[in-house]
Amino acid sequence: MHNLAAKRTAKLREQMAKHGIDLYVVPTADYHGSEYVGEHFKAREYITGFTGSAGTAVITMEEAGLWTDGRYFIQAKEQLQGSGVTLQRMEEEGVPSVKEYIESKLKPGGCLGFDGRTVCAKAGEEYETLAAAKQAKLDTTKDLAGQIWENRPPLSKEPFFVLEEAYAGCTVAKKLSMVRAKMEEKGADLHILSSLYDIAWLLNVRGGDISHVPVVLSYLVLSKKECVWFVQEDIITDAQKEFLSENQITTMPYDAVYAYVAAASAKAVLYDEHSVNYMLLQSIPKQAKRIAGQNPTELLKAVKNPTELRNTVTAHIKDGLAFTKFMYWLKTNIGKIPMTERSASDYLEQLRRAQENFLDLSFDTICAYGANAAKMHYAATPESDATLKPEGFLLVDSGGHYLEGTTDITRTMALGPVTEEMRRNFTAVLRANLNLADAKFLYGCKGIQLDILAREPLWELCLDYKCGTGHGVGHILNVHEGPNAFRWRLREGEESKDNGVLEEGMVTTDEPGVYIEGAYGIRIENELVCRRAQKNEYGQFMRFETITYAPVDLDAVDERYLSPCEKERLNAYHRKVYETLSPHLPDAEREWLKEYTREI
Amino acid sequence: MHNLAAKRTAKLREQMAKHGIDLYVVPTADYHGSEYVGEHFKAREYITGFTGSAGTAVITMEEAGLWTDGRYFIQAKEQLQGSGVTLQRMEEEGVPSVKEYIESKLKPGGCLGFDGRTVCAKAGEEYETLAAAKQAKLDTTKDLAGQIWENRPPLSKEPFFVLEEAYAGCTVAKKLSMVRAKMEEKGADLHILSSLYDIAWLLNVRGGDISHVPVVLSYLVLSKKECVWFVQEDIITDAQKEFLSENQITTMPYDAVYAYVAAASAKAVLYDEHSVNYMLLQSIPKQAKRIAGQNPTELLKAVKNPTELRNTVTAHIKDGLAFTKFMYWLKTNIGKIPMTERSASDYLEQLRRAQENFLDLSFDTICAYGANAAKMHYAATPESDATLKPEGFLLVDSGGHYLEGTTDITRTMALGPVTEEMRRNFTAVLRANLNLADAKFLYGCKGIQLDILAREPLWELCLDYKCGTGHGVGHILNVHEGPNAFRWRLREGEESKDNGVLEEGMVTTDEPGVYIEGAYGIRIENELVCRRAQKNEYGQFMRFETITYAPVDLDAVDERYLSPCEKERLNAYHRKVYETLSPHLPDAEREWLKEYTREI
Repeated sequence: MHNLAAKRTAKLREQMAKHGIDLYVVPTADYHGSEYVGEHFKAREYITGFTGSAGTAVITMEEAGLWTDGRYFIQAKEQLQGSGVTLQRMEEEGVPSVKEYIESKLKPGGCLGFDGRTVCAKAGEEYETLAAAKQAKLDTTKDLAGQIWENRPPLSKEPFFVLEEAYAGCTVAKKLSMVRAKMEEKGADLHILSSLYDIAWLLNVRGGDISHVPVVLSYLVLSKKECVWFVQEDIITDAQKEFLSENQITTMPYDAVYAYVAAASAKAVLYDEHSVNYMLLQSIPKQAKRIAGQNPTELLKAVKNPTELRNTVTAHIKDGLAFTKFMYWLKTNIGKIPMTERSASDYLEQLRRAQENFLDLSFDTICAYGANAAKMHYAATPESDATLKPEGFLLVDSGGHYLEGTTDITRTMALGPVTEEMRRNFTAVLRANLNLADAKFLYGCKGIQLDILAREPLWELCLDYKCGTGHGVGHILNVHEGPNAFRWRLREGEESKDNGVLEEGMVTTDEPGVYIEGAYGIRIENELVCRRAQKNEYGQFMRFETITYAPVDLDAVDERYLSPCEKERLNAYHRKVYETLSPHLPDAEREWLKEYTREI
Repeated sequence: MHNLAAKRTAKLREQMAKHGIDLYVVPTADYHGSEYVGEHFKAREYITGFTGSAGTAVITMEEAGLWTDGRYFIQAKEQLQGSGVTLQRMEEEGVPSVKEYIESKLKPGGCLGFDGRTVCAKAGEEYETLAAAKQAKLDTTKDLAGQIWENRPPLSKEPFFVLEEAYAGCTVAKKLSMVRAKMEEKGADLHILSSLYDIAWLLNVRGGDISHVPVVLSYLVLSKKECVWFVQEDIITDAQKEFLSENQITTMPYDAVYAYVAAASAKAVLYDEHSVNYMLLQSIPKQAKRIAGQNPTELLKAVKNPTELRNTVTAHIKDGLAFTKFMYWLKTNIGKIPMTERSASDYLEQLRRAQENFLDLSFDTICAYGANAAKMHYAATPESDATLKPEGFLLVDSGGHYLEGTTDITRTMALGPVTEEMRRNFTAVLRANLNLADAKFLYGCKGIQLDILAREPLWELCLDYKCGTGHGVGHILNVHEGPNAFRWRLREGEESKDNGVLEEGMVTTDEPGVYIEGAYGIRIENELVCRRAQKNEYGQFMRFETITYAPVDLDAVDERYLSPCEKERLNAYHRKVYETLSPHLPDAEREWLKEYTREI
């Protein structure tokens, strides 16, 4: 891979020279601001060799850099070795941001280039300002990565299905009218929706154009009267055509959105500058007022309706049964039968697939043994696939999409003896997890105010995890979803993202961890539904309900570090796990679960 | 008072009618954005009868409203009774902000008025925009309250003294050069400093123009070469003239600042839009660039230097000795000798005055018995002065200015039997206080991220306190000082205030509480110095050092609610109190302290 990366950056530089471009930016992006992208869009990975889900490459004639966040520092360091691409650890002291780097390298009269479809409107405008300040040019029309990419995978064109009301909990007509009401409120007569998650949610459709993210590659443009879906039209079945027509949704070809927007006679256009791409922004007629703001669908989608919440609990029970069976299998067979990271995660996948209404994994399973688990988003390859031994920690972060909802769970399990320090740190992570889950707080709190409840037990020990504590969870959509999240600081320039008030019905993960490079990783992740608690003269109190059901490995807990209140929190959680799962388990598994959810 | 308020609003309306003003705003303000104001400036109190330290009155021809915050709801409700002035509880659900109210009342072609010297630049500009949007006029030249105010106290003109370097820890020359460096950094060639605290800090002077806030009524204008102090010049002694001249500080009359700024040939003027008043902003020549930003002095002043920190600890030891003697006196004499709120606070003041280098109280002592303590900022009047009985809680929030520094401490003491609920709530407040004091956190945290550590023990019980958890403390200046603070939400439009990163050397109070209207109030307040802890691969960890020394009343603690770790936190604090104070106490007090700092 390393030599490949060096070769590919060299080829890219040839293209840059040909077009007079001095700096070229290759973000990890499709045309919709998606977090994970389809194979067709993995240009950054193609060029640098770094396989993580997040990162931006900037190539100059002399240098090449890859910016990524704390989840990927260890992995990127390894994958970039020998590639000539420098790892830029985002938010570390002394590391320039992508923009600061470009600012320092772009010369007056120079040219900054990127594919305008792969950069969001906000970033595109910032690059515009930056280039203007330098009297430099901007070239946003060339897909240079595409030019050098041999055998590039074509655009995905998977079939989709319609989510019945019994699962969606709300009709498309109702959703469209809610969004139109919000447009009216904001004074917009046209709304461009480019986020694939939001489109899927709004139209009650689910597809398969991104691995593990069941969306349909498309744009949507909404006015008071019209709703136009820009989609690869030949995937639509006759029954689906009828469904669309019943809902007054017309379709046009995927690529036609640019011309359609350019010809629109709108007075004021509402769009999310983080997901609408720069080229689409440029297509908006000059005379139309631009209203950059959150997509109305974002909050509507994040606040799960009663049907979605009821179903999500069902999905979590199935998922908990699969995971508990997996833990039983692991704990009873380790050291007796051969196991590797990949064989174990395959076994877990089988158990999930055996559940009714299982659709897909919700993301690539992270099954990481020993030092591999220190890489937060490790994915075992045939080369790295570690053999599991009856010692140390195995971290498994995984989840499924079911017709009823989406799950995301992490458990770290002792496969045999672990050190005192490992038990201490495991217990600190457990305290962090339970502490946040047990929070009671006044309405108005955001994740930024609650994050420290999880972080303090680790900070006490001078430990930290270089990522947020949790993220919103999409409903049979992207497993990561805003605007709810738990993080103690916001990314610069993204203060408005992942910083929503915690509303009743939002689902957020609670996943503190400890990652010791070269040694081990610990993460415990449950999902929390935000619920109302008491209301009194001080305001509306809120609390969380944990909806993930699987034991926390008591073999790794050091009781000495738990206060009586923390023990009771753990015991209460384990009682709930046992009560919920035991009626559905075979005898052996049930007995095992009883032991592993015992009171301590 | 109530009839008076009705009479005075009527008189104000006559003036409004005469000048064609439809809405008139009377904030609590001097010309410097001071929190507490001199007698000359108490126009809002004169008109409405509400004596609290914070509030804004808005008078229309038909209505009069007073906006104040949660600390004052109970007090304002009482004081406004029968006045015809409506209490507007800020940040409560359904209560409009001052601006929303004005927006709803101001009619096209109408006129909004205020004295432009009593409104800060930022608010003035917002009013300007608001009036423009309504096609309404703005009249900012008339001090209508002054027109109707009989026997208005004159401007204060107290003498001042120079703080020697042994106490200030930094010369004026050094401070001026630091501020000029910051001006350079921000591209400003002129800096208007109007905050009285910042001027006193910068010039190492302390005066007496605001009760308990030892500042000198003045403005300061700084350029690269000149430093002009606009002050009532006849207060300056010959020795002080020499000190000023040594530091190249020239003086001009207090009022001359407006004309001086108007005539300045500056290219770019730096000013804090929260403390420079609207009239002064209007004086800046049109061709000069306006740089609205934090005063460079704000952060320099908040980060106490080693001399200030060392001295502050000395001040706290003296203050702790005075307070401990007070507690001993109270606990041993209650029910035996007559005591009232006022006589008790007088006794405490005597004990403080007996300490070496005592200068003044740092604010009006709050000595509140029983239900009076539910008013967060209660001040006993001869009418309200409650008799202390051997039962219930007495809350005492007080502090002193010493030549070495300023203190602010609150203790709530059981004067005899208290209910189970009171002990439970007292213990929750104690847990809140200790929990925050014991925080370890990564550098970069602000108060907004840490606040919940104090709030959670109360939220658990569906209780809350309607104010921040703590504020920065000025060094022989205003007892409240930014940019450091602990609060879980920021006031709208003031997101940049009281929201600084916690820096090493900052001093912040930690004062959670419970206030039950009509019953009792509990507050426990210590001061915390921010210190560096370990630095490792995760970053720079920070911690707090508690520098307030006085026992927390064990008679009010219910041990059942304390975890072993919380007990140890309390015991460790009490050990430190005993070790620090006992060598300086007479036998009886020492024995008492030993008992009241015993291990639990």
